[in-house]
Amino acid sequence: MKHLSILGSTGSIGTQTLDIVRKFPNEFKIVGLTANKNSDLLLKQIKELKPKAVAIMDSSKKDDLLNFSSCQVYSGIEGLNKIASLAECDTVVNALVGSIGIEPTYHAARSRKNIALANKETLVAAGSIIMDEVRKNNVNLMPIDSEHSAIFQCLNGENINEVEQITLTCSGGPFRNYSKEQLKNVTKEDALKHPTWSMGNKITIDSATLMNKGFEVIEAHWLYNIPYEKIKVVIHPQSIVHSLVEFHDKSVIAQLGLPDMKTPIQYALSYPKRSPSNSKSLDLAEIKNLEFKEPDFEMFPCLKYAYEAGRTGGTLPAAMNAANEIAVWAFLGDKIRFPDISNLIMRMMGSHKPITQPNLHEILKADSRTKEEAKRIVEEGITAK
Amino acid sequence: MKHLSILGSTGSIGTQTLDIVRKFPNEFKIVGLTANKNSDLLLKQIKELKPKAVAIMDSSKKDDLLNFSSCQVYSGIEGLNKIASLAECDTVVNALVGSIGIEPTYHAARSRKNIALANKETLVAAGSIIMDEVRKNNVNLMPIDSEHSAIFQCLNGENINEVEQITLTCSGGPFRNYSKEQLKNVTKEDALKHPTWSMGNKITIDSATLMNKGFEVIEAHWLYNIPYEKIKVVIHPQSIVHSLVEFHDKSVIAQLGLPDMKTPIQYALSYPKRSPSNSKSLDLAEIKNLEFKEPDFEMFPCLKYAYEAGRTGGTLPAAMNAANEIAVWAFLGDKIRFPDISNLIMRMMGSHKPITQPNLHEILKADSRTKEEAKRIVEEGITAK
Repeated sequence: MKHLSILGSTGSIGTQTLDIVRKFPNEFKIVGLTANKNSDLLLKQIKELKPKAVAIMDSSKKDDLLNFSSCQVYSGIEGLNKIASLAECDTVVNALVGSIGIEPTYHAARSRKNIALANKETLVAAGSIIMDEVRKNNVNLMPIDSEHSAIFQCLNGENINEVEQITLTCSGGPFRNYSKEQLKNVTKEDALKHPTWSMGNKITIDSATLMNKGFEVIEAHWLYNIPYEKIKVVIHPQSIVHSLVEFHDKSVIAQLGLPDMKTPIQYALSYPKRSPSNSKSLDLAEIKNLEFKEPDFEMFPCLKYAYEAGRTGGTLPAAMNAANEIAVWAFLGDKIRFPDISNLIMRMMGSHKPITQPNLHEILKADSRTKEEAKRIVEEGITAK
Repeated sequence: MKHLSILGSTGSIGTQTLDIVRKFPNEFKIVGLTANKNSDLLLKQIKELKPKAVAIMDSSKKDDLLNFSSCQVYSGIEGLNKIASLAECDTVVNALVGSIGIEPTYHAARSRKNIALANKETLVAAGSIIMDEVRKNNVNLMPIDSEHSAIFQCLNGENINEVEQITLTCSGGPFRNYSKEQLKNVTKEDALKHPTWSMGNKITIDSATLMNKGFEVIEAHWLYNIPYEKIKVVIHPQSIVHSLVEFHDKSVIAQLGLPDMKTPIQYALSYPKRSPSNSKSLDLAEIKNLEFKEPDFEMFPCLKYAYEAGRTGGTLPAAMNAANEIAVWAFLGDKIRFPDISNLIMRMMGSHKPITQPNLHEILKADSRTKEEAKRIVEEGITAK
């Protein structure tokens, strides 16, 4: 039986993870939960799942929990770190959104917990530090997203030294067939309509800009120790082929399935076993067509920026990620237009002076400083080209 | 270093296997070769590769070889069996065409040779006996064809008990969009134009009737110990996805690549390693589209007959295969029309009285008796419906 702490248990990945935990009561026991500010749902989860301890990021909500639950209650980032390193826990599911997820992953690794990682920002901003801790503490780091779960599965029983290249597939988002002119005027409602995946708001906007795919390129680099020139992206609107690995004999292994986040979540939790699922089977004759095309780096510059940030390394990916978080927050708050997202990122990357081989503190500082500066620029008002 | 005997070294698979052997002179040494009747090419191969012994099926050609080579020369089926069990050999590549390949595989397994198997008829006609010997003698049986090599690769590092179903892809052959009326009048030249694979004549006709896919269904049953209801076929005209395995978590692993027989041949020879290849890489954005549809069992009844023969078992698959061999031979000799191939198979299957749990002798007798009877019917003249 695995003893789980779920960071971000009230979000999209968190609630889907709990659905899987409920399906296999003999395999998983919840020992820790955390939420950002949804104390109502967290309270329901506490009553149902009886964790040892919980944390809520928004300290003002702490009392809501203290008054109604008997378990230990923490708050703030220290609270998240505490839940990530609970003595009773052996596996941490990090389903946090944004750079707030970096520190808890670090604490989980240092406390020798296996990690199921949905938080993209952890590896994007702090890949070298996290992977060092993962290796030093000999813990399993299992990706929870369809693309990296796909690559992980494609590498089963294979030798990483025989890999020729990795190809991440990308739906292309809702705007893959838009013109540059059309892109200027898209609304957040347009951007939140993802063609194939049902996900949280932040990642859905990141999918519309292709920044999400850029993050995955950087994550793949760290997860599989693969140089950037061996990581490719291909647009695949149907989201059926989740990613592919080519070996040096030119044989390609791919993982496929209907778009359903429960598959990679369950795989990360049950690995090395595969547990049965009653999801719908993939029927290719019913799907009929799988399409593929090159990504357009000019229309979607975020993908290009991510390759640049990844190749430069140091604190630049953290700064890029921080700029993106503020840009997406500003776009969702109707403060900037869609093309301003990539413009703001470019501007912040241009002004950032990267520190090479940074420590965690320097990464977190690059993150917070870039966010402050990006917020200031947003408040002053920026204009799309 | 692996010491190879190549049965059928002058055919399509045989010559491609030798190309790979030439590429890796430090990994492979040829100790045995066999040919059907192409003594000229076999002689060239003897001079170049200096095997310990060779065999030629057509005994009348034995003298051609004896006069010009210093190695041991055998002939006939006993000769093939001899080369399959040479003391100096550790791995037998069976690239024979037709049921003549059954006995040599049997002898190879009993002599504890690892087997790289391109001969389809071995498992179609004698699957239970061959797999028994493979298990008893603890030898590796590696498939040489793109579909089973694909499945083998998809199962790397996986647990066979977690397999939900196997899907064999099928180009559909040159006639996949023909009407029943058009099928009546196709010529052997039409049938020999395979849309995606360049192969020998027999297998190209088998691909046009879909009998080849039927054979592969039966082979998959034996190779992976999977019941027939878990083996599906999907038409995929581009021949890029070579086959797929679905696991019970609904995750699907597929193997892909450009259609090139050298990839599965090399994999079978180098396994468990993957050796580098300078073949072209698969570029999905260049391919653009992968299409899939259900096979039409009414238009291509051979596929249906193969499922029936496989499910019934005993000597019925051997009889089906024998009828097919004669039908293809007759079609290539302009003795019958294209739809007569499946008609002859149906007729021979209908009149066959299957023996359950046959021994090798009974299987070979079912093969030879069915061939005699089918030949008689062809000579008397049969008419397409």
